[in-house]
Amino acid sequence: MSNPFFAKLEHAAAGDSVALAAALDALAFDDHGLIPAIAQQHDTGEIVMFAWMNRAALDETLATGRVCYFSRARGKLWRKGEESGNAQRLRELRIDCDGDVLLLSVEQTGPACHTGHHGCFYLRVDGDRLTVVDAPERDPNDMYPSRA
Amino acid sequence: MSNPFFAKLEHAAAGDSVALAAALDALAFDDHGLIPAIAQQHDTGEIVMFAWMNRAALDETLATGRVCYFSRARGKLWRKGEESGNAQRLRELRIDCDGDVLLLSVEQTGPACHTGHHGCFYLRVDGDRLTVVDAPERDPNDMYPSRA
Repeated sequence: MSNPFFAKLEHAAAGDSVALAAALDALAFDDHGLIPAIAQQHDTGEIVMFAWMNRAALDETLATGRVCYFSRARGKLWRKGEESGNAQRLRELRIDCDGDVLLLSVEQTGPACHTGHHGCFYLRVDGDRLTVVDAPERDPNDMYPSRA
Repeated sequence: MSNPFFAKLEHAAAGDSVALAAALDALAFDDHGLIPAIAQQHDTGEIVMFAWMNRAALDETLATGRVCYFSRARGKLWRKGEESGNAQRLRELRIDCDGDVLLLSVEQTGPACHTGHHGCFYLRVDGDRLTVVDAPERDPNDMYPSRA
């Protein structure tokens, strides 16, 4: 998994920087051209969702400040909130040590989850049970009228 | 991507629960038998790392309370901290809406990143630059004596 571009940055001093364009070209997209993207609400620290980006989704996100993923189910760019209105504004983007994961600090409008839950991680392990932590805050039928 | 087991939980009330064993059997591991796992420090909310688990790693993590991943590079179970001492204790495990991502709330001992950085996401996009946000807090050569 070693990535020469990112390995060179392992011992860099705090505050050192490199050209973003070169770093983006060195990102380790997987065999499907995708990279994992974790979305964290900027002020509460909640992980609101996890999805995937291809290079085009990442470029668009950086260019517009509005988060765009790649939908594996639909096989195309997925401008978060394009139908539901539940958009994400990018506050900060980070890249991990190996250049193969993205961490997005976002400002989420409405629920992040397609189920209407505020975030996607509403199922918690409690001993030998899996508990639903909270209920949807919005009706998915209102979020996706074309699918209702 | 729809997963019938998890789809049934989308409209459940807060506090409802199901048997964990059935939920684990319904998890959507990928073609390599892996599922993404996000590790978040329980008190600060920092995302300290991102890795993968197979079913055996997940079962061991739940049984022992000590986080175990699957190393794709080494092709085997990876008991976090087994060599470096930088272990992770599991505080809480969550599963996402589709049953295909895990979120671990952890208590991290020492740096989480193999580079010696506290967390893996120390590279931040600043305009057209990628900036190193902080320096390693531990020397990797001391963390992995067998590789030095």
